[in-house]
Amino acid sequence: MAQIMRDVGIIGIGQTPVGEHYELSLRELALRAIRAALQDAHVQRVDALYVGNALGGQLSRQEHLGALIADYAGMLGIEAARVDAGEASGGAALRQGYIAVASGGADLALVVGVEKMTDQTAPDRLDIERGLTDSEFEGAQGMLPAAVGGLLMRRYMHVYGVDLAAFEGFSVNAHANGANNPNALLRNRLKPGSFAGAPMVADPVTLFDIAPDADGAAALILCPTEAARDLVPQPVRVAGSALATDALPLHDREDPLRLRAVETAVSRALDQAGVRIDDIDVFELHDAFTVLTALQLEACGLAARGEGWRLAARGEIGLAGRAPLSTFGGLKSRGNPLGATGVYQAAEVALQVRGEAGLNQVSDVGRGLALNLGGAGATAAAHILERVD
Amino acid sequence: MAQIMRDVGIIGIGQTPVGEHYELSLRELALRAIRAALQDAHVQRVDALYVGNALGGQLSRQEHLGALIADYAGMLGIEAARVDAGEASGGAALRQGYIAVASGGADLALVVGVEKMTDQTAPDRLDIERGLTDSEFEGAQGMLPAAVGGLLMRRYMHVYGVDLAAFEGFSVNAHANGANNPNALLRNRLKPGSFAGAPMVADPVTLFDIAPDADGAAALILCPTEAARDLVPQPVRVAGSALATDALPLHDREDPLRLRAVETAVSRALDQAGVRIDDIDVFELHDAFTVLTALQLEACGLAARGEGWRLAARGEIGLAGRAPLSTFGGLKSRGNPLGATGVYQAAEVALQVRGEAGLNQVSDVGRGLALNLGGAGATAAAHILERVD
Repeated sequence: MAQIMRDVGIIGIGQTPVGEHYELSLRELALRAIRAALQDAHVQRVDALYVGNALGGQLSRQEHLGALIADYAGMLGIEAARVDAGEASGGAALRQGYIAVASGGADLALVVGVEKMTDQTAPDRLDIERGLTDSEFEGAQGMLPAAVGGLLMRRYMHVYGVDLAAFEGFSVNAHANGANNPNALLRNRLKPGSFAGAPMVADPVTLFDIAPDADGAAALILCPTEAARDLVPQPVRVAGSALATDALPLHDREDPLRLRAVETAVSRALDQAGVRIDDIDVFELHDAFTVLTALQLEACGLAARGEGWRLAARGEIGLAGRAPLSTFGGLKSRGNPLGATGVYQAAEVALQVRGEAGLNQVSDVGRGLALNLGGAGATAAAHILERVD
Repeated sequence: MAQIMRDVGIIGIGQTPVGEHYELSLRELALRAIRAALQDAHVQRVDALYVGNALGGQLSRQEHLGALIADYAGMLGIEAARVDAGEASGGAALRQGYIAVASGGADLALVVGVEKMTDQTAPDRLDIERGLTDSEFEGAQGMLPAAVGGLLMRRYMHVYGVDLAAFEGFSVNAHANGANNPNALLRNRLKPGSFAGAPMVADPVTLFDIAPDADGAAALILCPTEAARDLVPQPVRVAGSALATDALPLHDREDPLRLRAVETAVSRALDQAGVRIDDIDVFELHDAFTVLTALQLEACGLAARGEGWRLAARGEIGLAGRAPLSTFGGLKSRGNPLGATGVYQAAEVALQVRGEAGLNQVSDVGRGLALNLGGAGATAAAHILERVD
C-alpha cells in the first residue's frame, strides 16, 4: 500500500449526552455535537462533512443526511456525504474524513456520527434490525444482532470452557467508568456477582452483557497536522487509520471466534503509526457485547486466544491497569447510538490524549486506540490517536 | 483548497443492463458489474470498495453493503464502506474512491453503484421515498421527489414563459440515443409532438419528463494515473472531481431555479482540470426530470438562465451537436437505478473518452463531464474524465 500523502490531526471534539432525545430530530442532534466541535476548534466552517449514521433511513425515514446536516449547520454548499458500515458507520465516517484531508481534497473536514434509536417513524423495529445482519441468510430467519452476540458468546463459553461470570468484569469496569461521565446513559455501578440474576436477552447474553441502544451525536474536526499546531493548543495526531472487513454472516467465517477484520485493521494502523500494541496506553473497544470485548483483546494481541476474559478478571482493564478499557463507560454504560458510536470512541480517546478525561483520566497517555465494529466484526475501523509534542 | 496529492485514473468499467432484475439480490447484481469491471481492468482484487446505494436499507432491508459485497465479490478483508447522498450516491461513492486513491490510502479502488427499485421487502413504497426529500418538512406533507420535480417545472414555465413542449427535445434525444444502448431500459423512440398526450405524473411532469425507477449496477476501477498507463491500453484520467451541496428542501433555496451545488461542483472540477466548459466534448447530466436538464445546462454555463431548453430545441444536444447529452440514453431512457446512476454516468463518459461508445460514439472526445444530482440539486457530484495521451 502506498504511503499516506498528508499527516492528519484532530483539532475539535464535540458530543451530546447519550440518552433519549425525543425532542431533537436527527439534524438537530447532529448540530449540537457539531457546534461543540467547531467551538473547540475555533473554526466556523469546514470544506467537507462526513456523516456516520446507520439507520436514519429506516428509523426516521430520512436519507441524504450529508446535504441536510451541512445546510442545517450553516455550511451551505460544502462537500458532504453520509457513510454507512452498519454499527461501524461512525468509524467509517472518520476514515473518510481522514482520507479527505490526507488526499488534499479538504483542508478542514468535519466528521459527525448521529443516531436516533429510541423513537421511530417505522413501526417494525425488529424487521429494521434485520438490515444490520446478512438480511437474506440471517435476519430473515430471525437472527437479529442480539442473537449473533448470543451465538458468539455461547461458542466462546463452549470452546474455552468458561461460564457467564467470566465476562462480568468488562461490564463492571465500563459502568464504574461511565459513572463519572456526564454524557453516559447508564451511570449506575454494577455489582460483581450480580450477573447470574440479570434478565436474559438472547441466551446466554443477559442485559448486563449487551450495550443499550440510545440517541446521540459526536463530532470531530480534522485538518493537516502541520496546520493543527497553529490552530489549537493541543492537537491530536491521527497516527494510524485503517478499515478492514470480514464476512458479514457468522456462518461464512471459518472461525467465528477470530475477528479477522480487527486483526487486519489494528495491525495496519499500528504499522502506519510505527508502534506495537504495547505502546497503546488507552483502548476504546467496541463492547456491544461482553464477548466481543474478549475477542477484540485477543485479535489485538493483548491476550492469547481464549484468554481475553482474563484481563478483566485480573483487573488489568481498569484506569490504572495495563490496558485501560471503556474509560468513558464504553458502549455498555455510555450507551450505543449505532452510527454515532465510532465517533464517540475516537472523541473519548482524543480527550484522554489531551489529558481532558476528568476523573477518569489515565495517567500519561501518549496514544490510544479507538476500535469500532459493525456486524460483530464484519467491519473494523481502527484509529490510533497520539499526542503531538 | 489544497492540491490533490495524486493523480487518479480509471482502468476498469463494468455495468449490468438496467431493468427489472427480480431474480438477483443486491449483492448479486453488484457482483455482475464488479466482475465486468475487474475483467476490463485485468485485476482480481482491490484495496478498497465504495458502494453507492440509496435505498437498500429501506427497500431490501439490507444495510452494511460494504462488507457484504466485498465478501461476495471474493475480496474478503478489504476496506469497504457504503456512501449515501440520495440519488447522488453513485457520484458520491466515486468521489470517495477518488480521494482514497488520491490520499494514498488505496492503490486500487473499486466503486460500485447498485440499486434495486422494482421489488421490495417493505410494503410502504411512497413512505420510503419520503426519505429522499427533507422528510419532516417536505415528505411528511406528501411532497415526494416527483412532486419536487413538478414544482421546479411549473416554476420554470411560469418564470420563463415556456410551455410543456419546450422540454420534449431532451427526452426525444435521450430515447434516440438509448435505442442504441443494449443496457438501456427503454429503447423505444419518442415522437416529437407526442408529449401533450402523455400521462400526467405530478403536474406538469408527465411520463415523458421523468426517468423510470429501475434495478442496475455499474462499477469502475481506479488507480493512480501513473500506474494506469502500465496496466491498460486506454486509461481515462479523472481530471476533475468535486462534490458540493445545497439546501435539500426546495423552500430553503433562495432561488429554486438556480442549482448552486451544480455551479460550485462544476466550476471546481473545471478549475482542477484546468479547462473551460467549452472544452468538454460530452455531457452526462442528471435528467431525472427534463426541467433538471435545462437547469443544469444553465448552471454549467452552457446557456443563459431561462435558455437551457433552447439547446434541445436547436438540436445542439445531439451526438453531433455542440453539447451532446445523454449519449447512452441518460436517466430517461437508460433508466434510473438511484444509487447506481452516478456510476453509470461516469462509466458512459469513460466509454466515450475511450472511443467505445459504439453507434453513439461522439467524434474525437477529449474529455467529458458526468454530473450526478441528489435531492434535485441538494448534492451535485461532478467528474471530468479525459483521454490520457
